[in-house]
Amino acid sequence: MKPSIPKGTRDFGPSEVRKRMHIFDLMKNVFIKYAYNPIETPVMESLSTLMGKYGEEGDKLLFKVLNNGDFLAKANGEALDDRDSNKVITSISKRGLRYDLTVPFARYVVMHQNEITYPFKRYQIQPVWRADRPQKGRYQEFYQCDVDVVGSSSLMYEAELVQIYDEIFAALNIDVVIKVNNRKVLAGIAESVGIMDKFIEMTTSIDKLDKLGMEGVREEMLKKGLTNNDVDKIVDILQIKTLSDLEAKISGSEIGKLGIEELKCFHEYLDQKETTNKVEFDITLARGLNYYTGCIFEVVHSKEAYPELVMGSLGGGGRYDDLTGVFGLKNVSGVGVSFGAARVYDVMNELNLFPASTNVGIEVLIIALSEKAHLYAFKCLNKLRAAGISSDLYPSPAKMKKQMKYANDNNVPNVVIIGGDEMESGKLSFKNMQSGEQSAQSIDEIINSFA
Amino acid sequence: MKPSIPKGTRDFGPSEVRKRMHIFDLMKNVFIKYAYNPIETPVMESLSTLMGKYGEEGDKLLFKVLNNGDFLAKANGEALDDRDSNKVITSISKRGLRYDLTVPFARYVVMHQNEITYPFKRYQIQPVWRADRPQKGRYQEFYQCDVDVVGSSSLMYEAELVQIYDEIFAALNIDVVIKVNNRKVLAGIAESVGIMDKFIEMTTSIDKLDKLGMEGVREEMLKKGLTNNDVDKIVDILQIKTLSDLEAKISGSEIGKLGIEELKCFHEYLDQKETTNKVEFDITLARGLNYYTGCIFEVVHSKEAYPELVMGSLGGGGRYDDLTGVFGLKNVSGVGVSFGAARVYDVMNELNLFPASTNVGIEVLIIALSEKAHLYAFKCLNKLRAAGISSDLYPSPAKMKKQMKYANDNNVPNVVIIGGDEMESGKLSFKNMQSGEQSAQSIDEIINSFA
Repeated sequence: MKPSIPKGTRDFGPSEVRKRMHIFDLMKNVFIKYAYNPIETPVMESLSTLMGKYGEEGDKLLFKVLNNGDFLAKANGEALDDRDSNKVITSISKRGLRYDLTVPFARYVVMHQNEITYPFKRYQIQPVWRADRPQKGRYQEFYQCDVDVVGSSSLMYEAELVQIYDEIFAALNIDVVIKVNNRKVLAGIAESVGIMDKFIEMTTSIDKLDKLGMEGVREEMLKKGLTNNDVDKIVDILQIKTLSDLEAKISGSEIGKLGIEELKCFHEYLDQKETTNKVEFDITLARGLNYYTGCIFEVVHSKEAYPELVMGSLGGGGRYDDLTGVFGLKNVSGVGVSFGAARVYDVMNELNLFPASTNVGIEVLIIALSEKAHLYAFKCLNKLRAAGISSDLYPSPAKMKKQMKYANDNNVPNVVIIGGDEMESGKLSFKNMQSGEQSAQSIDEIINSFA
Repeated sequence: MKPSIPKGTRDFGPSEVRKRMHIFDLMKNVFIKYAYNPIETPVMESLSTLMGKYGEEGDKLLFKVLNNGDFLAKANGEALDDRDSNKVITSISKRGLRYDLTVPFARYVVMHQNEITYPFKRYQIQPVWRADRPQKGRYQEFYQCDVDVVGSSSLMYEAELVQIYDEIFAALNIDVVIKVNNRKVLAGIAESVGIMDKFIEMTTSIDKLDKLGMEGVREEMLKKGLTNNDVDKIVDILQIKTLSDLEAKISGSEIGKLGIEELKCFHEYLDQKETTNKVEFDITLARGLNYYTGCIFEVVHSKEAYPELVMGSLGGGGRYDDLTGVFGLKNVSGVGVSFGAARVYDVMNELNLFPASTNVGIEVLIIALSEKAHLYAFKCLNKLRAAGISSDLYPSPAKMKKQMKYANDNNVPNVVIIGGDEMESGKLSFKNMQSGEQSAQSIDEIINSFA
């Protein structure tokens, strides 16, 4: 049999894992510095935890795990006889694979509410699964990376999360723009225009601005039942670039004023420190998800820095007022952001931003030219490793050419060659594979050159 | 609804994740130093890759993932009508959850054989799933950690893997004994006694020595059809403590001599460096798995150091000659060891070996006593973080008592208190929570005290 892996899944080889670790390790260090705690939840969740949380379409995209043992014994017999797949599912499957990190986190907070000290700050980096049709750049198994605080409504956290975005993208060397808006401001627009009943229609239309352009958004709103007059007023407000201009326009709306207050308070915190990347008020930022209730964020790559790059947003998030209500715990406000881990990886690959070290497994390969030299070489290898230098020895005194090929295939930057002469003199041939430079050095001298 | 998680799965909270990371990070650093490459394989594998690899019992313990969409449309209708769960499975499920890291690694090597340079050294730390009945210390989702080299028969790697065991357990502060034997030596015993046809029966009996004692093993072998005379001879040989004594006993067996040669060559490499832990030849070490063909290893905690501790082996492994044959790639010899990650975790917990830092999320918590002080405190927080100090600020100027409770609940070792006086003087109240010591210092002085 020729083995294969399921469609939409991937193996990650050494350099891919090293690249991903580079990203995640860097993120983790920032999260820890900002006092976020790691948690991990099981890959399998109860299907009852997952179902109904992602809409009807989401339910279909959940991977369900078959009950073990004689699962048909307890199956819904009628549905089985009718060959009704949908109806039979919950009688033969009680577990599903995690679809995102938000629902498991909400479930975690509710289950552990008595152990948790609020505000509770957590980060979580784990894979999720979706039975989407696989296509270029879209997989059925992929990592998500979420950072949230629950149990406080302080806008300090909004500022802190923007700082985290700023610091991480700066450290990754990706120039980004961090866009900020507030769902209450959007509600203020709707209220000012007098279409509060069409708030969702308005925001989901605005959310498509990137794809459709302003003309398209206009059409979309008309299609959804807004009048020409309303749409004119909305589009007019959407041209506003500053908070103070906006304030005048929506001053009649209480919720709009509250949104502006929140943005101001957020900025008071944020302004205590300069950011590396641009943080930009963007009144057209809407975020599709309706559970956001306050500040919202989105990170996009800088069009100035990378005019050619075509790539969706690299992250997003916002304030929500009721994360855990669906599991029976009311009034837990929180704010969180997530990183588009796969897109960050793709951008870094495309812009060649990964450090060269992610392609290299070891610093030194030792090549021995005889059986006797091999044992001597192993002793040298032990010394290199004891000094903390990642190193290896070809497993046999094979032909020089073969061993050199192994060094090249593995991108090894330095080779030490040991034959009879080297053993006798204690001076080993130390070769830099990039420059081709070669010198005779003792093993201690070689070790010191890495210090 | 009250949410819950599936039986046999666990949430990992902050200190649990930090403890696990402590173990895995330490292991990773050693693997990298020894030139092993990370790989990751998908959680879901094709069921055809997994089935039949773990015996009939294993097939039952595989978690199977239901096909998406109208899965009953393509189901085996007859089996469905007969309610034959076993027969229907492969027609409604084509994916399963990874059961171990060995089979996915074999599948990986075969699929990527043209990209891989041999010898290929890899480590892999990922969770696996087994539908075992959950009980104390046994879970349905747990991490495995495997280190293997494939594509070389050099005994240097046996020595290197024992060094890795030695270095990692030394770094974790667990005193262990690393037991070594060779399957060819066991075959040599069988051949010398003249019961080569009963080799498997002999080894599986010896494998139970820990549980049954030598009398039990004797009975077990008799039960399996060995004669009293054979068993006497075997038990006699099993008393041998040194390689040289053994050599005389099994000199008539070619395979036995080969096994002894392998152990000697392994020791030649290993003896190039002193080990921290005891490495012990143990002729009674058998390892249940029949795919081992050469040296075999097992790590147990030192009975001398921990006479009270009851715990199974902390790791094991060995040489195999045909990892990938089942996927059509013949003659790939390899050697590997694995770490019982969950047991290592349990031992460290029981012996209190985790560094205190795993219980602590941050170094400093700032407490602000007024709204105005809060913004000032946020500026101080930014400075601490910019200096790389993991720190936080309570989100509001709440009552001192409440904020102090938060610090205590989170095991925060240092607190900085900022009120009006502190803002004015620039001298903040810096309190060590363990000693209770308190001093007035500027934020820069506080930062310097962490340098």
